[in-house]
Amino acid sequence: MSTFGSAFRVTTYGESHCKSVGCIIDGVPPGLALTEADIQVQLTRRRPGQSKLTTPRNELDQVTIQSGCELGYTLGTPICLTVPNQDHRPHDYSETDLYPRPSHADYTYMQKYGIKASSGGGRSSARETIGRVAAGAVAEKYLAEVHGVEIVAFVTGVGAIQVADADLQALLATVTREIVDATDVRCPDARAAPAMHEEIVRCSAEKNSTGGIVTCVIRNAPAGLGEPCFDKLEARLAHAMMSIPATKGFEIGSGFAGTCMRGSEHNDAFEADGLGGLRTRSNHSGGVQGGISNGQDIYFRVAFKPPATISQDQATATYAGEGGVLAARGRHDPCVVPRAVPIVEAMAALVIMDTVLQQNARTATRQLLRPVPDDLKAIKPF
Amino acid sequence: MSTFGSAFRVTTYGESHCKSVGCIIDGVPPGLALTEADIQVQLTRRRPGQSKLTTPRNELDQVTIQSGCELGYTLGTPICLTVPNQDHRPHDYSETDLYPRPSHADYTYMQKYGIKASSGGGRSSARETIGRVAAGAVAEKYLAEVHGVEIVAFVTGVGAIQVADADLQALLATVTREIVDATDVRCPDARAAPAMHEEIVRCSAEKNSTGGIVTCVIRNAPAGLGEPCFDKLEARLAHAMMSIPATKGFEIGSGFAGTCMRGSEHNDAFEADGLGGLRTRSNHSGGVQGGISNGQDIYFRVAFKPPATISQDQATATYAGEGGVLAARGRHDPCVVPRAVPIVEAMAALVIMDTVLQQNARTATRQLLRPVPDDLKAIKPF
Amino acid sequence: MSTFGSAFRVTTYGESHCKSVGCIIDGVPPGLALTEADIQVQLTRRRPGQSKLTTPRNELDQVTIQSGCELGYTLGTPICLTVPNQDHRPHDYSETDLYPRPSHADYTYMQKYGIKASSGGGRSSARETIGRVAAGAVAEKYLAEVHGVEIVAFVTGVGAIQVADADLQALLATVTREIVDATDVRCPDARAAPAMHEEIVRCSAEKNSTGGIVTCVIRNAPAGLGEPCFDKLEARLAHAMMSIPATKGFEIGSGFAGTCMRGSEHNDAFEADGLGGLRTRSNHSGGVQGGISNGQDIYFRVAFKPPATISQDQATATYAGEGGVLAARGRHDPCVVPRAVPIVEAMAALVIMDTVLQQNARTATRQLLRPVPDDLKAIKPF
Amino acid sequence: MSTFGSAFRVTTYGESHCKSVGCIIDGVPPGLALTEADIQVQLTRRRPGQSKLTTPRNELDQVTIQSGCELGYTLGTPICLTVPNQDHRPHDYSETDLYPRPSHADYTYMQKYGIKASSGGGRSSARETIGRVAAGAVAEKYLAEVHGVEIVAFVTGVGAIQVADADLQALLATVTREIVDATDVRCPDARAAPAMHEEIVRCSAEKNSTGGIVTCVIRNAPAGLGEPCFDKLEARLAHAMMSIPATKGFEIGSGFAGTCMRGSEHNDAFEADGLGGLRTRSNHSGGVQGGISNGQDIYFRVAFKPPATISQDQATATYAGEGGVLAARGRHDPCVVPRAVPIVEAMAALVIMDTVLQQNARTATRQLLRPVPDDLKAIKPF
Repeated sequence: MSTFGSAFRVTTYGESHCKSVGCIIDGVPPGLALTEADIQVQLTRRRPGQSKLTTPRNELDQVTIQSGCELGYTLGTPICLTVPNQDHRPHDYSETDLYPRPSHADYTYMQKYGIKASSGGGRSSARETIGRVAAGAVAEKYLAEVHGVEIVAFVTGVGAIQVADADLQALLATVTREIVDATDVRCPDARAAPAMHEEIVRCSAEKNSTGGIVTCVIRNAPAGLGEPCFDKLEARLAHAMMSIPATKGFEIGSGFAGTCMRGSEHNDAFEADGLGGLRTRSNHSGGVQGGISNGQDIYFRVAFKPPATISQDQATATYAGEGGVLAARGRHDPCVVPRAVPIVEAMAALVIMDTVLQQNARTATRQLLRPVPDDLKAIKPF
Repeated sequence: MSTFGSAFRVTTYGESHCKSVGCIIDGVPPGLALTEADIQVQLTRRRPGQSKLTTPRNELDQVTIQSGCELGYTLGTPICLTVPNQDHRPHDYSETDLYPRPSHADYTYMQKYGIKASSGGGRSSARETIGRVAAGAVAEKYLAEVHGVEIVAFVTGVGAIQVADADLQALLATVTREIVDATDVRCPDARAAPAMHEEIVRCSAEKNSTGGIVTCVIRNAPAGLGEPCFDKLEARLAHAMMSIPATKGFEIGSGFAGTCMRGSEHNDAFEADGLGGLRTRSNHSGGVQGGISNGQDIYFRVAFKPPATISQDQATATYAGEGGVLAARGRHDPCVVPRAVPIVEAMAALVIMDTVLQQNARTATRQLLRPVPDDLKAIKPF
Repeated sequence: MSTFGSAFRVTTYGESHCKSVGCIIDGVPPGLALTEADIQVQLTRRRPGQSKLTTPRNELDQVTIQSGCELGYTLGTPICLTVPNQDHRPHDYSETDLYPRPSHADYTYMQKYGIKASSGGGRSSARETIGRVAAGAVAEKYLAEVHGVEIVAFVTGVGAIQVADADLQALLATVTREIVDATDVRCPDARAAPAMHEEIVRCSAEKNSTGGIVTCVIRNAPAGLGEPCFDKLEARLAHAMMSIPATKGFEIGSGFAGTCMRGSEHNDAFEADGLGGLRTRSNHSGGVQGGISNGQDIYFRVAFKPPATISQDQATATYAGEGGVLAARGRHDPCVVPRAVPIVEAMAALVIMDTVLQQNARTATRQLLRPVPDDLKAIKPF
Repeated sequence: MSTFGSAFRVTTYGESHCKSVGCIIDGVPPGLALTEADIQVQLTRRRPGQSKLTTPRNELDQVTIQSGCELGYTLGTPICLTVPNQDHRPHDYSETDLYPRPSHADYTYMQKYGIKASSGGGRSSARETIGRVAAGAVAEKYLAEVHGVEIVAFVTGVGAIQVADADLQALLATVTREIVDATDVRCPDARAAPAMHEEIVRCSAEKNSTGGIVTCVIRNAPAGLGEPCFDKLEARLAHAMMSIPATKGFEIGSGFAGTCMRGSEHNDAFEADGLGGLRTRSNHSGGVQGGISNGQDIYFRVAFKPPATISQDQATATYAGEGGVLAARGRHDPCVVPRAVPIVEAMAALVIMDTVLQQNARTATRQLLRPVPDDLKAIKPF
């Protein structure tokens, strides 16, 4: 449904043409310094109209904290965040509403609900993601302050233009949001970025659209996150990412390419980390082993399909099953991945924050117990 | 945690060396004909030792229905399923327990719980999946009887040996479990299967392991499944699949390859289905649009890494951070994908069954309302 | 936390001095006719300042539907409802803030959160109930239209003034909201109402407060509601009612008095209902047997303690443990039960709606199965 | 459904005539010393046949830990507990199955599921409570070891025989399970216990049954437990208690009697506790204020109706609506409250344990933040 998370729980609302969109966040730690500015920065990064590559609509997307904060601090009570819609009148019915748009959600929403939002796909609208981004910013504020967590997503593929694998590992260690935002395609790779830009311009000229790939790295997440067996960290991340509109794939660490490796090559051997703990010498696991974070960088890739809305006519059928042509209307975003970057970051933050709370519950509860005797080496090896 | 699903809810238990493994299933529809034989068939498919390619351990894995059924029918109350472990004594501590096994869950379980199962990874053991497979068989029994749902998973990659894309689409429409089980690698492609067999034999001879890919198709799932916005059908499926041990990636429909397509090519145009409804002419969407099933075949791919346990020594470090060599012990499964097939099917069945119940609640509740007036075309287009 | 319900799920937000209060409702059936007027009527009944007996503050409490509806119909997507707070500036600290108010939530909120809302008890404020009442009105709209459900709560006790048991059974069958609202104490018993009024006036004159009892009847709820074993209908109702601020007790049907009855007297024998089904000749069960509704009237009582805020000085201690006197401030509501009436109704509606959705899922799913053979009389007796 | 709790989550299974009954407990802290003996003690207290007052059936109810423990310690993974049923053959249909038993669950189960367990009420059987008691014993083990929590339930009413209010307060402070078990009625009040015994004997002789009241005190529960606004501690306790079969009422602290008190009398003033914190001088609140525990004793009362199964004939109707007489069969328990004592304790332990985990998550997470500045007195008063 429209709720995500267990201990840090976000419920979103809103479609394209209602009065506002937003969310309620429950489970926010009390005493966190938080203002609207902390949230606005990511909403602004998500906003369309920031470059020539994205839809030129001017949505201001100003967030208001309705509850849960006083004097700049969270109270621990639910935080409601709202962002007004600029155009909140329901659409009138028009001729083009005869057709469910191909690969859009019009048809399936009708199948599911027996009714549709006047604007078409209802909650499948990109505006639905505003609540996610706003909530993610709150999670991120905590994670950065307490754990120094850094979450950076960036574009690594636009159509066939992709960042080379060899370049990716270095990027994972060093990339920042500033570097990402330096190009309008949000690709920090100097070779790929201009080619991506051109590819998007080309798509736009062709009145067509293209897919792309967003890669995300989470640095400094504590070890121990993720709940076996169904709520493994990678399962939670996959759920989160595949709930973003237009996603078609998710891979963590070595991903699909890892299926071609031998175990001896894929295994991440341990070594002392110089701080009394262990680290791995390689990181094909992507920071997760047995569904639990191991303290290394968590990184994953998300595939986005080409946007279904294109500026050219399409031969298809009406709701009633009659063949015809759905005429193109207006200008459309030819590639969503640059704007998807803060959405991927937000969903990552929501997953990490929820698992941090879950693990803190376990650790705090366990540490009050008498220790297990040291001689039970089979279950307490050191 | 160890519970999956909302309306059809499965909770599993058990690790390698406890007395039994199994699950409780809550929300099973009452009046479903169900016997242990219905469940045993998939447990037997999951069992190791079925061919020369898998671990020769002989686990019988006989399931018992503890509750929730009488006279061959479900009562609607929780069904507890148990499978005894053959060896349920905790291990003694041995020298090799000094080392957390590379890319296994030993280290992260210690980080998470501060204690470990004597056998190492505890719930990360492959035996944990028995509860999933048993529960999936119950879900599948309902789906097959009522909706004619067919769920068939099969191997499409072993290391670099992969089924060609061109051959895949035909397989999706026609493959059956009988065809899948005809080869020990569970690959229905006549060209790829022998090569896969040889690749696994080669890995075994090299005392190494290899990864692989499982593809799954769900035929005849009703339209309307999946709950926007966070519980989109593909998000639920991704969650389910990425919770299976050793998975590294998930893609639905066109997946990562779809990122390189143009929108005009990727869009699935509609046409009349001859039954008063619509179908799509292509199926790049993989049966899901806007997070909701559209009645077409749902298909997806799952990446499995090479098993971390290999029959060769590995240079790594002890829990205490001292470098050393973890000696190989025993024989191990060089490739898990043939045995993963029924696990993928089970998780798919659990997702579909849960979403069917959720959608049935909505539909049954909605249909009791007075209809929305037909003249409100903007929200009721036909 | 701040979410209630499973299939019909309400999340509320807001405290006394934030910008607004309200809720998000997820799981609303699509196609339900719904306008703000449907919701406003119960919010207005909840509002203080309606008679001489309640706080004379003038809160307008105008609700806005932010999302989930178009052209007067629900879309099936989340409905966000907001009600602005008139005074949304955080309070300044004042001398009286030194003291946690006795039997209020100030002290426990500090224990729980380590921080407090400037107004004191934060979410324990009566304004928190606005979100509940708004959501309950949506649930009730559906239940009334489809099942003819009638939910009527009324005051049956103010201090020692109580409606006689003999009069209660007749009231349960006939009482309406119009009758309830005919007196300012919201007691439909002609003998008790004036005495209750006088008791509240007396309390007010004494600068004191009094407790009371609200009784609620739910008529026409379908049989089959409630989920064994932990989510029995009476357990869900008890949870709902005891989550209302200031409640101290709940009883259903015969309640505590029933503990003094013999089984032969308490048992509700069956008889034909003239419609092909069964009804019970008596209703000591309160409409629920084995945790499941049986189609008879569901009725229960809720105890409310005297409000903790009184208009007289109180000897107590500061947060720092120093004894002192907390001075009275302002005028206060001497008895909450008249205003609690719509809150009790709302929580009842939320429980019934959620259980209706859960049961509809089961029934719709079950009815698609082949019938259990008639000769299995032990499990299918007729 | 059959799952209770959020962070400490129990799922039960089993009815009267299946192979076993039991539960899976998820979220148990790792490293807790736990053996079957810890659990058996409460199961044995729950067992019938312990005195002349209860059913003389001899159920041994031996528990087995199936998973989640090794070498006497919990692993943090799910613990499955099973107890075999002695008679696990489904019943044959007999003439008396024509009749739904009055005030039992036969009729409502048929309404809900369209099928019934051969023994009648299925999960409404008292054997369902075995899983609860087993799980409660695990929770209690932790709470006692870490917090010194003491949970003691005892009988305070059998029919009209009730422990005087004046005697109750002293009992709350001092009663132990040993004292409770000293009498077969499990009433620690020397005056009431013999009268209760006689009342039950009288009922038995009359082939009838009687209701009763169980009071429970929880000592040493930490302050801060309970989650506003819907999961207030008293709401969770009410839910838990009202999910026990045969319960009709719940009250905490002053309860229904508190509705007759003035606020000035009911309010619990604070004083220094001599340990740097506060305590209350009285405890009408029952240890909970604003839905959150305040560190004082938590006490509550639960009403149980007279058992529906009585040893005398009853005039009622068949499933088909024909009037007739349901003949008495066998001997039956004339009063359930003595056996309900460990069930009430178990459910109390489950609630407290779950809220402890939830609050530990919050506290541990909050304490890693930079402190809120001391000068923000309105939100940080000391």
